[in-house]
Amino acid sequence: MKLYDGGRASNPRRVTIFLKEKGVSVPTVPVDMAALGHRAPEVTSLNPFQRLPVLELDDGTVITESVAICRYFEELHPDPPLFGRDPLEKALVEMWDRRVELIYFAAVAAAFRHLHPAMAGWEVPQVPEWGEVNKPKALDFLGFLNEELAGRACIAGERFSIADITMLVAFDLMKPARITCPPELNHVWRWYRETSSRPSAAIARV
Amino acid sequence: MKLYDGGRASNPRRVTIFLKEKGVSVPTVPVDMAALGHRAPEVTSLNPFQRLPVLELDDGTVITESVAICRYFEELHPDPPLFGRDPLEKALVEMWDRRVELIYFAAVAAAFRHLHPAMAGWEVPQVPEWGEVNKPKALDFLGFLNEELAGRACIAGERFSIADITMLVAFDLMKPARITCPPELNHVWRWYRETSSRPSAAIARV
Repeated sequence: MKLYDGGRASNPRRVTIFLKEKGVSVPTVPVDMAALGHRAPEVTSLNPFQRLPVLELDDGTVITESVAICRYFEELHPDPPLFGRDPLEKALVEMWDRRVELIYFAAVAAAFRHLHPAMAGWEVPQVPEWGEVNKPKALDFLGFLNEELAGRACIAGERFSIADITMLVAFDLMKPARITCPPELNHVWRWYRETSSRPSAAIARV
Repeated sequence: MKLYDGGRASNPRRVTIFLKEKGVSVPTVPVDMAALGHRAPEVTSLNPFQRLPVLELDDGTVITESVAICRYFEELHPDPPLFGRDPLEKALVEMWDRRVELIYFAAVAAAFRHLHPAMAGWEVPQVPEWGEVNKPKALDFLGFLNEELAGRACIAGERFSIADITMLVAFDLMKPARITCPPELNHVWRWYRETSSRPSAAIARV
């Protein structure tokens, strides 16, 4: 198999961290997204939505979408479990991964893509008003999460999961999105210090 | 357990259809979303994001997010499998469910929430420009899907899956979003006729 990797962009990094946490090594085809390599014919033929990462299996089957790629490896290599161990834990990991992705990551990404000058060729058309509307949404989520993390170690419970990985790449995207986590959110910062110091997190940091 | 149900709204309907396909019956607490019942203290205390559906277990554990609730029931009642049967099928179902949700459903919902006058109290602030930008995105996805469905029965392959349920509730949301599927997309229409005629689809139709 081959993983077409977009380096430090959030979703490619999400899969790279996941694989590192799993201890799984996959042959990689680096794609230079800054040079719009994800829009080249080779990637477009694999994923018409021109998004990375893309996993191509030996028989030519293509899996796109970062979480789908992660789930494939979870099924092939169950240890350590990063999607939960039993029905309830699996449901709670999915709940938290979706809350982080759909409420927080989406808001940070909207601020980044609709407001950053470098994104003008990526997000067409940019709608700056939409970018601005999303900044307080991201901050509201951080305030909510701070209270949650007062009572537990990780995003979805006491065990590290894919929800921590999603939160980490989204948190790091705040820098180019020009959103600052308030210093008084001490539980979020404690979580960030612990998570970003894992060896897996050093990969392709923004 | 109790399912706090929002009736015909897209995400509550997604879970209701899923349970009907599973043949699973769950005690339901109806919530009148038109009367903003999802913002009442009872629901807010269960889900601070004031979104439905919410599943409350007998020990008080709360599961939110429609796909997380569906996955919980998939784990408890594996037949018929609606998230795929083996690692590759599970990955492809997740890939298609995410493509439908993040590219198409999100675009239809943005058009509905940011342009429909009745949504002014729900989506604050409405950004009409963002709603307009999303209409062609929804149509582009339908064109792409039409070519895909020329070669297979269902969204993620030959077997009915959660991706078909997500596509169905999103397709039906086009009506209030005032987006029309072009009549020439005959493979999409064939799929819609087949899917919307399943007994499960009659539930809480928009």
